[in-house]
Amino acid sequence: MKVQVHVSLKPGVLDPQGRAIHHALEGLGFDGVTDVRVGREIALEVADDTSDEALDEMCYKLLANTVIENYRVEKLS
Amino acid sequence: MKVQVHVSLKPGVLDPQGRAIHHALEGLGFDGVTDVRVGREIALEVADDTSDEALDEMCYKLLANTVIENYRVEKLS
Repeated sequence: MKVQVHVSLKPGVLDPQGRAIHHALEGLGFDGVTDVRVGREIALEVADDTSDEALDEMCYKLLANTVIENYRVEKLS
Repeated sequence: MKVQVHVSLKPGVLDPQGRAIHHALEGLGFDGVTDVRVGREIALEVADDTSDEALDEMCYKLLANTVIENYRVEKLS
């Protein structure tokens, strides 16, 4: 089963990487960009009988830092 | 307009970060994980009149390294 975990910074948490990209886009002449936030997208290939609880446990134990990050699990197949 | 750019390593390109996560998941007792790949998800807030060409240009000029990475642009609103 293919699973995608989307990890993004919580609103309000500073994102220096996003800010750097924002500045670089402006430097390249792209106007009209007002915000940039960078997250991670982790593609997992897991056994078909993996439970939702196990996937959730993977996220909060390892894949995301729940103090500053939100995560969303998406089953693809 | 909200735009999400999904950047992932091309197939065949080594992913040491994904491999480290894979090993860590096994160490935590999660069996049945057969593959882990890590990508980036860049959330942009851009002017509504931003053209598809401009978005594509942002990707190949800055957001993705097209030698080793694929990207996909998704307009959310």
